[in-house]
Amino acid sequence: MELLEIGKFFEEHDCYTILTHKSPDGDTLGAGFGLCGYLRDMGKKANVLNSEGFPDRYDFLYEGYEPMDFEEQCVIAVDIADITLIGSALSQYTEEGKIDLCIDHHISNKYYAKDSYVDGKASAACLILYRLFEALGRPYSDQVAKCLYTGISTDTGCFKYENTTPEAHLAAAELMQRDIKYAIINRKMFDVKSRGRIAAELFAIENMEFCRDDICAMIVLTTAMMESCGIEPAEFEGMASIPLSVEGVEIGITIKQRHEKVYKLSVRTTEKIDASAFCKQFGGGGHIRAAGCEIQGTLEEVKEKVLAAVMAIKL
Amino acid sequence: MELLEIGKFFEEHDCYTILTHKSPDGDTLGAGFGLCGYLRDMGKKANVLNSEGFPDRYDFLYEGYEPMDFEEQCVIAVDIADITLIGSALSQYTEEGKIDLCIDHHISNKYYAKDSYVDGKASAACLILYRLFEALGRPYSDQVAKCLYTGISTDTGCFKYENTTPEAHLAAAELMQRDIKYAIINRKMFDVKSRGRIAAELFAIENMEFCRDDICAMIVLTTAMMESCGIEPAEFEGMASIPLSVEGVEIGITIKQRHEKVYKLSVRTTEKIDASAFCKQFGGGGHIRAAGCEIQGTLEEVKEKVLAAVMAIKL
Repeated sequence: MELLEIGKFFEEHDCYTILTHKSPDGDTLGAGFGLCGYLRDMGKKANVLNSEGFPDRYDFLYEGYEPMDFEEQCVIAVDIADITLIGSALSQYTEEGKIDLCIDHHISNKYYAKDSYVDGKASAACLILYRLFEALGRPYSDQVAKCLYTGISTDTGCFKYENTTPEAHLAAAELMQRDIKYAIINRKMFDVKSRGRIAAELFAIENMEFCRDDICAMIVLTTAMMESCGIEPAEFEGMASIPLSVEGVEIGITIKQRHEKVYKLSVRTTEKIDASAFCKQFGGGGHIRAAGCEIQGTLEEVKEKVLAAVMAIKL
Repeated sequence: MELLEIGKFFEEHDCYTILTHKSPDGDTLGAGFGLCGYLRDMGKKANVLNSEGFPDRYDFLYEGYEPMDFEEQCVIAVDIADITLIGSALSQYTEEGKIDLCIDHHISNKYYAKDSYVDGKASAACLILYRLFEALGRPYSDQVAKCLYTGISTDTGCFKYENTTPEAHLAAAELMQRDIKYAIINRKMFDVKSRGRIAAELFAIENMEFCRDDICAMIVLTTAMMESCGIEPAEFEGMASIPLSVEGVEIGITIKQRHEKVYKLSVRTTEKIDASAFCKQFGGGGHIRAAGCEIQGTLEEVKEKVLAAVMAIKL
């Protein structure tokens, strides 16, 4: 699908459900609420859904948002690479043929939707929307601009990572001139930590494990540990970057317990290792420097599998 | 002085000493080596000086740099707001009339040089140089581009802080297209920490003190504590952002011991408090959200003075 065909899609439909991925982050929510606001400004009806609800830490993205009452005409998935990432509470959308359009920037996108616009080189799904809205030429609100900025900023680690493109900087230069209070957004997204989060980081760092001559660092977040910190799950987001922050580490792995015998791996790598390839062997995927997967088993079994995979990495 | 007059200054002089400020950071060193590289490419002779030498963590800025032998014709200070920031090892330059030109972005600049180009709204001294080099139109090397990018990136907290301007993003969009490996620079500047640094952070966080209903958080780095971490002083840079990272904190203060009875304060604030005004009462200065000053006395005396000043802040 071509970019401008999305504009045609908007003209042809009136009532939209917008899906965002489970364990929501700034990009999926920014894209979801940004697109929703844009469509509503066009006079369309649109709602945003997330399997786990909307975390408090992103409240500035859905300020003033109220769900609308309408009969769903089409479904758009934003920033969702694979239908399994929609989440169990929205499983009705995982049936074949339910998603009309997918707008995504994951190279690993599975093309599960009837139509897809995927650009694996875009820094964020929000950057694709920025490109789209600029191409369509219709003015959009500061609130929409704020959503787009947030997605671009959060998915690039505030313009820090390799996935930051000149286009991401150019978009930021435009979007920040709107009334979006970008410094407050960035402080909230990157700097501010609750005391519970700080305690969790201290615990994780103090218990960090190293292997393969210290090029791999690993932290484990068990349900019990996370509960003892007394913070909501969304607050653990970003902790996956901690292991890679240790000097000399080339692959940082965060093992987060989801259920009794289900663990979510978040893998971050330097330019020497392909995170996406690493996760693929466990059925996951993502980007070249940041990817994820799920592994089942006891914590000991999971760690054993991970360790074996780390030892097998060709450097 | 107008921007293009600096170009005229370059035409009129052949042998340059470039001064950078003590406790050097990415912006002063980026500006120093960026300007030096630019002048050398013009066929001029130029050296960069720093009172404390060049820290290892910035080695990529002075890769291949060798001091030249020449008779100094003029002196340029970059990113130096006040002559006292030149540092004691270069005190010969603090005499009246020694500095010919100052290029700076501190609003608190004291105009100590014979000529000054100061733009208090520029995100970084390196952004002023970028503006200058673009205006002059002479091509410059990737190494110079790398220096400029580093100064802009480090002084804006990687485009995170309020001092980030659209111009900073536009400059980054251009500079990153050169062979500068921006993601590796950013990882080195913002993410990678030695184990000693991690130990220092753990210590600082565990011993953080709060006052005035927890809107002020304070960490203290004594010489003894810093030595016990076994890392070089430059590695403590950036720790000043830790206290402000605690949720609810509006002013974060880092007290770093310089000598037995001399302490350096680094103050970081949210939009509710003026860091520069806070430091001014102790003879310091800086930017509105990030400023510094020196206070003499025992640690207890210093803390008492700071606490009194915090209690006196009008909110």
